[in-house]
Amino acid sequence: MNKAPKVLAFDVFGTVVDWHGSISAEVSRMGLPVDPDAFATAWRQGYKPAMARVRSGELPWTKIDDLHRMILNDVLRDFKIASLSEDEIRKLNLVWHRLNPWPEAVEGLQKLKSKFTIVTLSNGNLGLLANMAKNASLPWDLILSAEVFRHYKPNPETYLGVADTFNLSAGEVMLVAAHKDDLVAANACGLQTAFIERPLEFGKGHIRNDLHVEPFITYHAKDFLELANQLGVKP
Amino acid sequence: MNKAPKVLAFDVFGTVVDWHGSISAEVSRMGLPVDPDAFATAWRQGYKPAMARVRSGELPWTKIDDLHRMILNDVLRDFKIASLSEDEIRKLNLVWHRLNPWPEAVEGLQKLKSKFTIVTLSNGNLGLLANMAKNASLPWDLILSAEVFRHYKPNPETYLGVADTFNLSAGEVMLVAAHKDDLVAANACGLQTAFIERPLEFGKGHIRNDLHVEPFITYHAKDFLELANQLGVKP
Repeated sequence: MNKAPKVLAFDVFGTVVDWHGSISAEVSRMGLPVDPDAFATAWRQGYKPAMARVRSGELPWTKIDDLHRMILNDVLRDFKIASLSEDEIRKLNLVWHRLNPWPEAVEGLQKLKSKFTIVTLSNGNLGLLANMAKNASLPWDLILSAEVFRHYKPNPETYLGVADTFNLSAGEVMLVAAHKDDLVAANACGLQTAFIERPLEFGKGHIRNDLHVEPFITYHAKDFLELANQLGVKP
Repeated sequence: MNKAPKVLAFDVFGTVVDWHGSISAEVSRMGLPVDPDAFATAWRQGYKPAMARVRSGELPWTKIDDLHRMILNDVLRDFKIASLSEDEIRKLNLVWHRLNPWPEAVEGLQKLKSKFTIVTLSNGNLGLLANMAKNASLPWDLILSAEVFRHYKPNPETYLGVADTFNLSAGEVMLVAAHKDDLVAANACGLQTAFIERPLEFGKGHIRNDLHVEPFITYHAKDFLELANQLGVKP
């Protein structure tokens, strides 16, 4: 039996918000001559390699907004789109500030907030996360970001940084994420873990097949409402 | 005519919350054999000198929670209070997490939030500010702290850090504060400024006499509701 956590720290892209659906929809709306699904996937695929360049020290500290823009430049070139003005590219890059939450996410977060302190722990920069929260009514008690700790997940400084922020032990913090590599790293730092199934994270054409139960996961739920139930939040 | 700001950054202690009244009340509730007014004043008086030791490099980066505790130890000694257990002292130190907002503050912030992005810019640490916001229902879009920038106000890194967080120019950010030294420093960095009169900040026995209009202040209001009105927020 685990002791109840005091702080729930949420991964954001994919766990709270639907990046693939939001970006595909934006690309469709703009009428770009590309497969929106392939475009969204390509943009996201550049994400981990870009952060790896910061984590290795090859790049100095660089915000996700700027990494997103570097990747977008490559994706636009690869998809042979040369019709966008600098203003249009800048606006497209900010689509990450306007991602839509999964359908139950806001209600689920509100329930969890009634019993726990709920915070983000995202590689997204603070401005991005604040704009997203304002736009989507995400009721965070605190927005924490890799930007605060100057380390990207899965570096331990991020997970341990949440505990330190609240003067708690690692075991009093739970990472909530739809990604197992994130939860493995949090577990290695002593955090509790909750896995959220997000089968549609990569779109309807790419249903995820890695949703099975794992020994390093404390809680396993299909969404935030089920997690609230498992954690004893009153309905 | 100034261009409308996009982000309002709020000083917190004294501007949003009533530290003197909250701490006096806590000390009274605890039945400590001291003048609550004098005790609250002495604790707060240690604040700027303690931060100055960090700003000068004499101390490494130290959170306000820890500075508050160092000062509290001195104050307890000076007031000859030796009756408190370590647990009681620790709990008393966290009174700064439970400060009460000024009567109109929550309503005023909600109004301002309808038109602007509202953030903290406080020397208080992130955990303190998050606990305070949860306890007092302060509806911040983002909690920013000296802890994020690793510089205490009035260092320019803090004011410019808010602009950088949102990828804005300094003039698109307005500092809202009840303290003129804070506003002078923000103005020197190119921020807009709003002064809020808080005549009772130091208690009823020490009405402030420094509430007059100043040339470096863009807006001057008696409280957040009046500021919302001045900034064109619809009633």
